Amino acid sequence: MKKSGPIRIEHGSGGALSRELVEELIYPKLRTEAFPELSDASAIEPGSEFLITTDGYVVDPPFFPGCDIGRLAVFGTCNDLAVSGAEAVSMALGIIIEEGFLLEDLGRIIDSLADAAKSVHVRVVTGDTKVVPSGKGGGVFLTTTGIGRRIFPLPLTPRRIGPGDRILVSGPLGAHGLSILAAREGLPIGAGLRSDAAPLLPLCRELFTLGAELKFLRDATRGGIAAVLNEMAQDARWGVLADEAAFPIDADVRATADILGLNPLEIANEGVMVAAVSESTAERALALLRSHDLGRHASVVGIVTGERPAAVMMSTRIGGRRILDFPRGLLLPRIC
Amino acid sequence: MKKSGPIRIEHGSGGALSRELVEELIYPKLRTEAFPELSDASAIEPGSEFLITTDGYVVDPPFFPGCDIGRLAVFGTCNDLAVSGAEAVSMALGIIIEEGFLLEDLGRIIDSLADAAKSVHVRVVTGDTKVVPSGKGGGVFLTTTGIGRRIFPLPLTPRRIGPGDRILVSGPLGAHGLSILAAREGLPIGAGLRSDAAPLLPLCRELFTLGAELKFLRDATRGGIAAVLNEMAQDARWGVLADEAAFPIDADVRATADILGLNPLEIANEGVMVAAVSESTAERALALLRSHDLGRHASVVGIVTGERPAAVMMSTRIGGRRILDFPRGLLLPRIC
Repeated sequence: MKKSGPIRIEHGSGGALSRELVEELIYPKLRTEAFPELSDASAIEPGSEFLITTDGYVVDPPFFPGCDIGRLAVFGTCNDLAVSGAEAVSMALGIIIEEGFLLEDLGRIIDSLADAAKSVHVRVVTGDTKVVPSGKGGGVFLTTTGIGRRIFPLPLTPRRIGPGDRILVSGPLGAHGLSILAAREGLPIGAGLRSDAAPLLPLCRELFTLGAELKFLRDATRGGIAAVLNEMAQDARWGVLADEAAFPIDADVRATADILGLNPLEIANEGVMVAAVSESTAERALALLRSHDLGRHASVVGIVTGERPAAVMMSTRIGGRRILDFPRGLLLPRIC
Repeated sequence: MKKSGPIRIEHGSGGALSRELVEELIYPKLRTEAFPELSDASAIEPGSEFLITTDGYVVDPPFFPGCDIGRLAVFGTCNDLAVSGAEAVSMALGIIIEEGFLLEDLGRIIDSLADAAKSVHVRVVTGDTKVVPSGKGGGVFLTTTGIGRRIFPLPLTPRRIGPGDRILVSGPLGAHGLSILAAREGLPIGAGLRSDAAPLLPLCRELFTLGAELKFLRDATRGGIAAVLNEMAQDARWGVLADEAAFPIDADVRATADILGLNPLEIANEGVMVAAVSESTAERALALLRSHDLGRHASVVGIVTGERPAAVMMSTRIGGRRILDFPRGLLLPRIC
């Protein structure tokens, strides 16, 4: 990766360039012996039962069908903890507001955030507010940091997966990202779509009952399912064979994405996760997910293989095979 | 306070409007029974030995004499923990970068942040990076969240102070904020000033040996000493009588502030704190602070009184008395 020159918007899209920026420019400077892997959520110190995660929310617009930046920040933060095996305990809230942003909109955002936090039993215990001059910000940015208590004892990282493991997706893809895009661009198509942002902990709790048969969990946000599967394959150094027809995608999402020339597998979600479980547990895992409303369209979408390590192959509807690549290019910026 | 209409830059200046924004619009929506007070650092859950603090850094420019945004973020976060009686354990780093910001500058910032973190023995254990379009950001914004372990058993809040307590300032005021202003505006005056941003934990540790005689600590960042003293007086519901001549202010800072029409007592610092201790301990506290290089110009600047509760009075150099008000108006935005 280039380490000089201007940052491009693609560095933030959740695709290949995002990963390179973080893995090549940022992590190497911050990695320590005690924390050789920097992940979405880490123990606050080696061996601690408490995990910490942080996320910036720069979504544009801040209000969109089905959700808003405040609610999104709470669910996003709690979901990062949930897929790391932890139950959220408390949150810190950093707000950066651009001069001229309306106080009443800020009030609505904080109301929504507080409401979402209450719904998932997490308390906002500290915060910070900054104001930047007009033209030097983007309305409102939130950075929320969550503290969670570990409730699943094993790491849910790609390192635990192996050939034969089954890959599940917990729900329909793409509605969140497309609803934001439609709202931002004022598109007539997609106007009926609503973000399905939701807390994932209830689904995770079901899968935690599988014990060591549960190998990996990750919420499919920026870069969508395509990014998660590629990160998983690269970090595990195994291949993934996915079945294109098995991905749950609602008809209206598929139609909207087709018209816009977008791949639903690359669109961000907030309330959909990927799980990897042992072969013998796949049916049980699917039933557990489907026992919840949020998981009723869960599907087994693929298998971990020893072929083509680090790559994601997809068997297509017409019987062929193609690579499902790491998303490249612009995708949808500012959707989380 | 108005709860509608546009946010003004003064809402972020650390003065009266900042306090109103947070106390009237944000806190009431987030306060819970378990956390009735939202402070700079809070326990991660009731009774926990771990504290959490979060701060946004939007300083413009990101590099300035003596410091940069990365180093500032580490010291600022660790100082919030230190003055709350905790030793920093780990940090989460949220980065929001504007398209077009130079990768090499980002690299320098992360290097500096990593170096500062190492110097105070705190590990960055997780992070997040977002990119916003050109014109929708301000170069680089950092939001750092610190986790600390409590090493002083009592709360260091204004509620523990009472009449007769002495107020100390740990070092010379104003160099940090003025150095940023000079760098931002390219001022010929003040060009020799350097930020004195520094970690406060070593000074705090000295004062922790005073046990219950140590009542209150606060680092004097946005809004300067004037904001800290006024917040202290308002929250304690006691008065403060300060001695104008006792505030440690270097001659070059005083001269620069005079020319610019700024009050050094309202300028942000990062490496200077206010302490309140019992009357009988004041000399000992002063000696403890002065035993460190960073505290060698520490001074007793005032006394807590039963007169004029919630107000800060200042005995002036010419023998009069005047109110030292909560900073109002613009002050210096984007200095932390």
